[in-house]
Amino acid sequence: MSGAIRPGERLTPEVANAEALDVSRSAYREAVQVLTAKGLVESRTKAGTRVLPRNRWNLLDPDVLAWAFSGEPDAAFIRDLFELRAIVEPAAARLAAARREKDDIKALRDALAGMRRHTLATEAGRAADRDFHDALLRATHNDALITLSASVGAAVNWTTQFKQRTRALPRDPVPDHARVSDAIAAGDPDGAEAAMRTLVDLALEDTRNAMEN
Amino acid sequence: MSGAIRPGERLTPEVANAEALDVSRSAYREAVQVLTAKGLVESRTKAGTRVLPRNRWNLLDPDVLAWAFSGEPDAAFIRDLFELRAIVEPAAARLAAARREKDDIKALRDALAGMRRHTLATEAGRAADRDFHDALLRATHNDALITLSASVGAAVNWTTQFKQRTRALPRDPVPDHARVSDAIAAGDPDGAEAAMRTLVDLALEDTRNAMEN
Repeated sequence: MSGAIRPGERLTPEVANAEALDVSRSAYREAVQVLTAKGLVESRTKAGTRVLPRNRWNLLDPDVLAWAFSGEPDAAFIRDLFELRAIVEPAAARLAAARREKDDIKALRDALAGMRRHTLATEAGRAADRDFHDALLRATHNDALITLSASVGAAVNWTTQFKQRTRALPRDPVPDHARVSDAIAAGDPDGAEAAMRTLVDLALEDTRNAMEN
Repeated sequence: MSGAIRPGERLTPEVANAEALDVSRSAYREAVQVLTAKGLVESRTKAGTRVLPRNRWNLLDPDVLAWAFSGEPDAAFIRDLFELRAIVEPAAARLAAARREKDDIKALRDALAGMRRHTLATEAGRAADRDFHDALLRATHNDALITLSASVGAAVNWTTQFKQRTRALPRDPVPDHARVSDAIAAGDPDGAEAAMRTLVDLALEDTRNAMEN
């Protein structure tokens, strides 16, 4: 299982694989269990273990996302994550404005302060950016939406990396985020949704420009 | 690990647990690996294995969803899944109308035919209903959205069960679904989004009524 696994690939027999990888059979079995749990492979009694087609993978699982982004992720998948963000984040901002509690407003403001202090040129600043989007989803108090945080974070992260790669950041992201945070704190669902839609649209535009360069 | 696992609960020591459950230590270790992979438990060298707080669980994982619905799911989680549906499905219908291919239209129509033939009073009819919502997400050709199919399917299923439990179905679901399918086939994004929004709103209303009974 070194290197990339490819849909349709066969991973058996277990003994040969464990030996080739120089790991114990039980360590190998545990690794296959984890891959099975995440929808990447399927074991059948006679056919052995096979890598499942990509659309069976649990692509929103935090580990699977991290693995997908450990190499060069394909442009189609980045587009897919952005579409998910564009659908989920404005609606989440609307719910957050209606349901946020004191702690949620604090989490959004702390993240914003971190972005301002460290800037997206540093890892600390990028972590604060991901914290902001995580705090927004948490402020919805909807467990299903909160579970999407890893996917949204991966998309957020990837955009920033794209931008870094090309040239200095094309625009200061703090005012856009501040507008979202202020509307949520003010309990303004329409304003929060509109501000988040603007933010996601601008991020998508920046990413598109960076991908074309 | 028989019965429910509760956030904060401690699962160690491994030897005692494996013995109590009358399974081998390696089988126990594999089971813990799977639970770890799905974000339900966390193992630390000294502290042992602990059940994580519910908001760390990967609630959109197909297996975790199945486990969550194997008992009596709480009303808050059903509300959460419905909000996710209300956010994702109308937007997905819009994308599907723009991107659907011949096979997608066939899959939607086949599912609709299954719903009409078997009705939601039978398991075959309910499976066709889930197939319809799965076909809709697949027609977006967005891998991130397709991954949400298990969550949407769980919500769809639960609505139907609620309705069954109380009394005869309050309305024939086929015409609502047919309107979505027709708009997607016609390549009409506005019509598809509006039809899907109506469908989700009606399902939510039915579920609310059933939950109050």
